[in-house]
Amino acid sequence: MFRVGIITCSDKGFKGEREDISGKVIKDILEKNDYKVETYKIVPDDKEEIKKEMIYMSDSLKLDLILTTGGTGFSKRDVTPEATLEVIEKNANGISEAIRSYSLTITKRAMLSRAVSGIRGDTLIINMPGSPKAVEEALDYILDSVHHGLEILTENAHDCARK
Amino acid sequence: MFRVGIITCSDKGFKGEREDISGKVIKDILEKNDYKVETYKIVPDDKEEIKKEMIYMSDSLKLDLILTTGGTGFSKRDVTPEATLEVIEKNANGISEAIRSYSLTITKRAMLSRAVSGIRGDTLIINMPGSPKAVEEALDYILDSVHHGLEILTENAHDCARK
Amino acid sequence: MFRVGIITCSDKGFKGEREDISGKVIKDILEKNDYKVETYKIVPDDKEEIKKEMIYMSDSLKLDLILTTGGTGFSKRDVTPEATLEVIEKNANGISEAIRSYSLTITKRAMLSRAVSGIRGDTLIINMPGSPKAVEEALDYILDSVHHGLEILTENAHDCARK
Amino acid sequence: MFRVGIITCSDKGFKGEREDISGKVIKDILEKNDYKVETYKIVPDDKEEIKKEMIYMSDSLKLDLILTTGGTGFSKRDVTPEATLEVIEKNANGISEAIRSYSLTITKRAMLSRAVSGIRGDTLIINMPGSPKAVEEALDYILDSVHHGLEILTENAHDCARK
Amino acid sequence: MFRVGIITCSDKGFKGEREDISGKVIKDILEKNDYKVETYKIVPDDKEEIKKEMIYMSDSLKLDLILTTGGTGFSKRDVTPEATLEVIEKNANGISEAIRSYSLTITKRAMLSRAVSGIRGDTLIINMPGSPKAVEEALDYILDSVHHGLEILTENAHDCARK
Amino acid sequence: MFRVGIITCSDKGFKGEREDISGKVIKDILEKNDYKVETYKIVPDDKEEIKKEMIYMSDSLKLDLILTTGGTGFSKRDVTPEATLEVIEKNANGISEAIRSYSLTITKRAMLSRAVSGIRGDTLIINMPGSPKAVEEALDYILDSVHHGLEILTENAHDCARK
Repeated sequence: MFRVGIITCSDKGFKGEREDISGKVIKDILEKNDYKVETYKIVPDDKEEIKKEMIYMSDSLKLDLILTTGGTGFSKRDVTPEATLEVIEKNANGISEAIRSYSLTITKRAMLSRAVSGIRGDTLIINMPGSPKAVEEALDYILDSVHHGLEILTENAHDCARK
Repeated sequence: MFRVGIITCSDKGFKGEREDISGKVIKDILEKNDYKVETYKIVPDDKEEIKKEMIYMSDSLKLDLILTTGGTGFSKRDVTPEATLEVIEKNANGISEAIRSYSLTITKRAMLSRAVSGIRGDTLIINMPGSPKAVEEALDYILDSVHHGLEILTENAHDCARK
Repeated sequence: MFRVGIITCSDKGFKGEREDISGKVIKDILEKNDYKVETYKIVPDDKEEIKKEMIYMSDSLKLDLILTTGGTGFSKRDVTPEATLEVIEKNANGISEAIRSYSLTITKRAMLSRAVSGIRGDTLIINMPGSPKAVEEALDYILDSVHHGLEILTENAHDCARK
Repeated sequence: MFRVGIITCSDKGFKGEREDISGKVIKDILEKNDYKVETYKIVPDDKEEIKKEMIYMSDSLKLDLILTTGGTGFSKRDVTPEATLEVIEKNANGISEAIRSYSLTITKRAMLSRAVSGIRGDTLIINMPGSPKAVEEALDYILDSVHHGLEILTENAHDCARK
Repeated sequence: MFRVGIITCSDKGFKGEREDISGKVIKDILEKNDYKVETYKIVPDDKEEIKKEMIYMSDSLKLDLILTTGGTGFSKRDVTPEATLEVIEKNANGISEAIRSYSLTITKRAMLSRAVSGIRGDTLIINMPGSPKAVEEALDYILDSVHHGLEILTENAHDCARK
Repeated sequence: MFRVGIITCSDKGFKGEREDISGKVIKDILEKNDYKVETYKIVPDDKEEIKKEMIYMSDSLKLDLILTTGGTGFSKRDVTPEATLEVIEKNANGISEAIRSYSLTITKRAMLSRAVSGIRGDTLIINMPGSPKAVEEALDYILDSVHHGLEILTENAHDCARK
């Protein structure tokens, strides 16, 4: 059973001015799929705050997976990808490419997503879209493959020539 | 009405040995779509020259959008993506991925495009293809979504959880 | 006739505990397509070893193309993309995007590939998948376009406005 | 406001042995999008019964749109496409192709859908998938375009050279 | 050099109330690509008129290719696909599927196209879109492959196991 | 274990003037995947001969799956799809659409395939491409989904509302 942390990046959500539906959607889907949601935080759109939360969940809590929602668009305050890029040690951008490519079949505006994915230590970090509907579609789309990725990431011995 | 700058990166175009059709194609399409083309420059395939022009258009002219054409291929002198990566503060590569993905349906050689996209301050910078036909197809393909991106980028107040 | 080097990244392959089928598949396809395979090395999943081999093939052997196989997945020891990113001077990631996008039509797990592509000096470096079947499909898919890219990369005079 | 009929094709649903969730999902989405659901029937997997219901909804009720769910797979009793093909006067299979093509990005099993679409008189008939989740995704995907199609279909005067 | 006929299906075009730009676009592109446009007719949206013209071009003029434009949408008067289906002897719908699939990457409304393709005797018949822009994009997209198809269709001896 | 018949449609193959590699490729892949290849016939490109063979394999041998290779192109003698359409009772064209859509990512000439798929009694019939390489790629691509389809097709009791 993989252990997960959810980070909602939203100034309004942090100040309590907007309900965080997307974070709840992620939590529901993960729990229905037998993931253990260990922690779920709302942080403001502040790069250092987001980085701090990611580092804590990865290095101290030793979570297997961190999913963020919010902060990946074109607004001035959107800095979730920048925070993510500064904490990951390996890029796993195929996941973000695949989400965008899938979302493009629904709406061309998907090209505006700046989401990234990567690995820090034993933790996979993925930026999910911000809207509840997009988050649900994207998570459904990637969850099987991500599960397989987590199995490999958390294995002890592994011969890398097979990927 | 968004304000745009066009940069054609071409040694031959700069020396006047080749007519810059692609730059004109971009200008025509943008003006037909109610963009204001403030400036249109032909520069040699020199990384520092390209960077200087981008920085000037973004920081001094405060343009909303910079489109480049040329210099994104496999030739030794092609350095437009390298110049772009050195001036942008945020990556917006979903746009370049989407152009390549669309162009792949037309020709597999689209995989050779090294184009990138990103944001510097309030300015969106996008590397467009070099050939007039490819530029036209790609611009048609992205223009609606880019318009939406510019609306968000130039907004004052915005809650980033919604992207 | 383009000159190629193949690098298989595999701890088990290096120690002789596993036969390197993927490397041989690459060699066979390239030779059938009139490429000259100058060298073919099996290295352990060690970033510095991989970098050293790439730099030698590019700077000393002056090869036109280096294809790697293995080490692009989610295993701890997988570091081929990290090694590649540290030696390339220009990113050519459209090739890796295209391989993933093509592979996604076969299996969604293709999103887990972390492969990258780029240019060092006159040498194009591409991370190929690790499994023999995936390597064969991906190489078939890209070979025509890569050939065209190598023609441009190895040209002396070239006006970059045309890409 | 377009007037719609829903037909659920299911032996078990007809006998009351299984709740018809998919039909309810269609009804909910349509009503949220300002369609008027005039009638909603559960019929057994019997070609003549399905045809009779379609003909009644089209010729007598003069509905603008009929959506079916169920009966488009590989089971012996699945005959919804066969019933549909016998009542439509014009094929509009681009809609079913688009649903399959979109669904293929989610699961390759989408290729097993035998769904068809067409026009009878002033009524557009579309076979939707059978599972609640697939129905929701597919309806979200096509609804905008279908709306545009219905506007044209129900126009009085129209110059067909524009499509 | 392949010999082509163009049929514009349009009530307004036939009555001279609308200029036929799409037919001219097809003519221009074909002539630039070394096709010989033998005849170019504007017919009303009448199934029998369209069939008569197709049969004449195929059986009497012995043309290699007939391209239609107009009449493939959702309007009552749109009957070009129905006319085409009644004159072709073999279905070649992969061409129409490919056009729709390509057009879907530009706009989801492409799913409303009811265009078909097929072979009558030695003549390939393809329904193209109605709007000048869509016609140009689609023709550019298919022309290379159609050329190859015509070479095979007009060959004398041919072993069919190779397709 | 599903029972399969292979039909190679080829005048040259039938006369022994050309070796039937594609049929052997299909046989190998199927046997590696635990299918039982009951019969494998080479027939000339003659619609009645092809129909006779299909009817025999379906009605008398009661095979679960018939795969054809050859005869789906633009040559005069290519009639495999026409033969197939005359023997199937239900269309299952999503499979052929999916093969073409996948093959289009490899080569645009895939749009020239006229292949069809359908169900006769308890037998699924699929037209595969003619070239050994294309046959291998396509079969790899569809085999999992086809297997699932055969499970449903050969089930006794089944509620069709679930597809």
